[in-house]
Amino acid sequence: MLIPYFLYNRVFVPENEETMKKTVNVGLIGFGTVGTGVVKLFNHNGSLIDKKAGLNVRLKKIVDLDIKRDRGVNIDKYMLSAKAEDILNDPEIDIVIELMGGYKPAIDFISVALKNKKHVVTANKKMVSKYWEAIWPLAKKNSVEFMLEASVAGGIPVIKGLREGLSGNRIQKIMGILNGTCNYILTNMTLNKMTFADALAGAQAKGFAEADPTMDIEGFDTMHKAVILSSMAFGQRVKEEDVHVEGIKGIDYQDIKAGDEEFGYVMKLLAIAEHSKNGINVRVHPAFVSKAHLLASVNYEFNAVHMTGDAVGDVMFYGRGAGELPTASAVIADVIDIAKIIADGAGGKRYENISSDGAALVKMGEIESKYYMRFNVMDKAGVLAEIAGILGKHEISIKSVIQKERASHKEVPVVIMSYEAKEANVMKALKKIDALSEVKQKTVYYRVVE
Amino acid sequence: MLIPYFLYNRVFVPENEETMKKTVNVGLIGFGTVGTGVVKLFNHNGSLIDKKAGLNVRLKKIVDLDIKRDRGVNIDKYMLSAKAEDILNDPEIDIVIELMGGYKPAIDFISVALKNKKHVVTANKKMVSKYWEAIWPLAKKNSVEFMLEASVAGGIPVIKGLREGLSGNRIQKIMGILNGTCNYILTNMTLNKMTFADALAGAQAKGFAEADPTMDIEGFDTMHKAVILSSMAFGQRVKEEDVHVEGIKGIDYQDIKAGDEEFGYVMKLLAIAEHSKNGINVRVHPAFVSKAHLLASVNYEFNAVHMTGDAVGDVMFYGRGAGELPTASAVIADVIDIAKIIADGAGGKRYENISSDGAALVKMGEIESKYYMRFNVMDKAGVLAEIAGILGKHEISIKSVIQKERASHKEVPVVIMSYEAKEANVMKALKKIDALSEVKQKTVYYRVVE
Repeated sequence: MLIPYFLYNRVFVPENEETMKKTVNVGLIGFGTVGTGVVKLFNHNGSLIDKKAGLNVRLKKIVDLDIKRDRGVNIDKYMLSAKAEDILNDPEIDIVIELMGGYKPAIDFISVALKNKKHVVTANKKMVSKYWEAIWPLAKKNSVEFMLEASVAGGIPVIKGLREGLSGNRIQKIMGILNGTCNYILTNMTLNKMTFADALAGAQAKGFAEADPTMDIEGFDTMHKAVILSSMAFGQRVKEEDVHVEGIKGIDYQDIKAGDEEFGYVMKLLAIAEHSKNGINVRVHPAFVSKAHLLASVNYEFNAVHMTGDAVGDVMFYGRGAGELPTASAVIADVIDIAKIIADGAGGKRYENISSDGAALVKMGEIESKYYMRFNVMDKAGVLAEIAGILGKHEISIKSVIQKERASHKEVPVVIMSYEAKEANVMKALKKIDALSEVKQKTVYYRVVE
Repeated sequence: MLIPYFLYNRVFVPENEETMKKTVNVGLIGFGTVGTGVVKLFNHNGSLIDKKAGLNVRLKKIVDLDIKRDRGVNIDKYMLSAKAEDILNDPEIDIVIELMGGYKPAIDFISVALKNKKHVVTANKKMVSKYWEAIWPLAKKNSVEFMLEASVAGGIPVIKGLREGLSGNRIQKIMGILNGTCNYILTNMTLNKMTFADALAGAQAKGFAEADPTMDIEGFDTMHKAVILSSMAFGQRVKEEDVHVEGIKGIDYQDIKAGDEEFGYVMKLLAIAEHSKNGINVRVHPAFVSKAHLLASVNYEFNAVHMTGDAVGDVMFYGRGAGELPTASAVIADVIDIAKIIADGAGGKRYENISSDGAALVKMGEIESKYYMRFNVMDKAGVLAEIAGILGKHEISIKSVIQKERASHKEVPVVIMSYEAKEANVMKALKKIDALSEVKQKTVYYRVVE
């Protein structure tokens, strides 16, 4: 008796790994720097990726408006298309990687991909930060995964570490250096005694900073990442408008020098997210970090995330937060994770437990910190007593006072370091102090992390 | 018509999450320090664990020879048993946590658990390092997971980071500070100018070091962890006998002082695993680490793992490598991961791709490093020329020479720092130098990491 081929196969070929091995098809939207890195990794580490995933992971299609430019990577021309539909509507494609950036049309493409039951991997922190509520329910509804390791801290597997590695912990605090451009500028100011303007120009020349560096140096890029990290860490949505943001624009070298030489502090742009008994506070601002703290040793374009869990205590993750291959490393890790989930026949179960409400938000005025304050005052008797009096009335205790220059009846800087004080009290005191006739410029202040 | 109850249920109750929510039962073998931490986390963070896992995770049974001692945690007495069979043979138990340590009977219990199709979580580095080949195939054959995050670097999610977070990378190098006792001793010698004996006594008084500290200070504990990390990183079995091991016993404060003051180096006990074009080399030894390297800032009982991947570049993970709650944090993370896999109806697919052969092993003599060498010589003309001559003949270039003391015709230390040289050449040269009549003690040498 003749056995039909499909039955023959079914009956006589053992269902070992080889015959059961499935192919997962990937579509890439956005063929820029990181997209090129992703293609390089598929080309160079393809067999490793298949081995780790336990099935064949194939890059099937690449979509970009510019399909002519030579990116220096080896690809077949038929893979390229200028139409996102060629990925979004291809029933063979299981995973869509979105690397175009920006709000539109990225969010539209991602929504269609999820609705078409495709898993999505993105590095688009700006989009996720804003469209959080639109994305997760869509992923869940369609039983697919939405993965974003590359959106925070580039190649550092911090989202995985937070969500999975520390999953038994209540996360109490996160402090992150999340923007390579800012850290590169601040490190050059600190170690190489540069002014802000020179350090920024240097970062632009090196390609770390954009021609328009606003998103970076005003702290918005760090804020997008803080929104994502804190929402995941605390299991509840933190919105952009909930985050207090200060950038590093115009930081004066004299403060960096004073912090370094007088107090052993280095300046870092930090994202800080705290979950205390009072609630949640998320903020982005430059801060003086004690050199004894490991974050102080994170220099130049490197990123780091320092987390405190109720069981694990302090943990830090360090590495490259941007760049072609480091960011592609995070994208590929997500693709491999999804491929494993596909192999398991599961999906869409990973992120469903983030609620839109929970702990209260702690207003910025309620936080407590030590403060570095540089007053610019006329050098004459009684001024310091007046400032100290105002600080005292606002429950701000002075730890040390340093006046390096003497210039009778001229303007000199006086630096005061405080003990822990309430932000609102400090703001009120500084407003009163800045109104004094002997105070010649607005007081410069930075929060201190020890 | 009456509908039987089970059909009634099946037909009319929607299969929503609530009704489908499954309970995963956990059995804990070993109720010591870490076991107590695990119970504390179940007690304090139980609802968080259930939320993260997406189903109910219940600690059902605890086995220990001592079921009388009060561990200061709240548990129902009926949970305790002195018989491992009460966990291993309980068909309701899905996950077995093994925290008893040692080879026997841990390996027997784990084997039975896997054969009985129970997932296993362990912190037992010593056992995994030795019984690697026995465990993984058993897990695979029975379609269950074997997880061991807690076995390396305590609470730091480094195994997850390596296996999943960096899964798209070829790992080129790992450098780890993996033993808190040794790092505590070396940090106290460096920062607090202690002798080895005093620092060890201090570590014992603090509870960081055991009464018999051999496993720690001779480097064996670090070696066990190096075996696990390197086997996973390179996707092939590295055996204990393949690892070159030197401990920190008897390190002389004068070398720590010279390294610090003359060269800007600090001493660390490192596990180093390299995968170069020549093959794989894994070693454990004290090394001088440049203060510019982030590993140099990892102090006291903290651990860190620094990894280099071909895509991501340098990444470092830092945190507490031991202790009740940090280690329990890693155990619980593994339990939650397994609970998710159970929810997905999958299992036993995570570790199958580690082969028992592959790249060649690079012998210790073949590695290249910079070397710190302290010669103990008679202070007389011509001695240095003779030493330099022998080094030169063995292709060892001198970077700097420091002789701080002068004492004509008496014994003085002379420190030479070399450029990159081949280990075998250095060993040959030192053998010849130590045979010189003017050399009064065996030369002390340390490899240097910059």
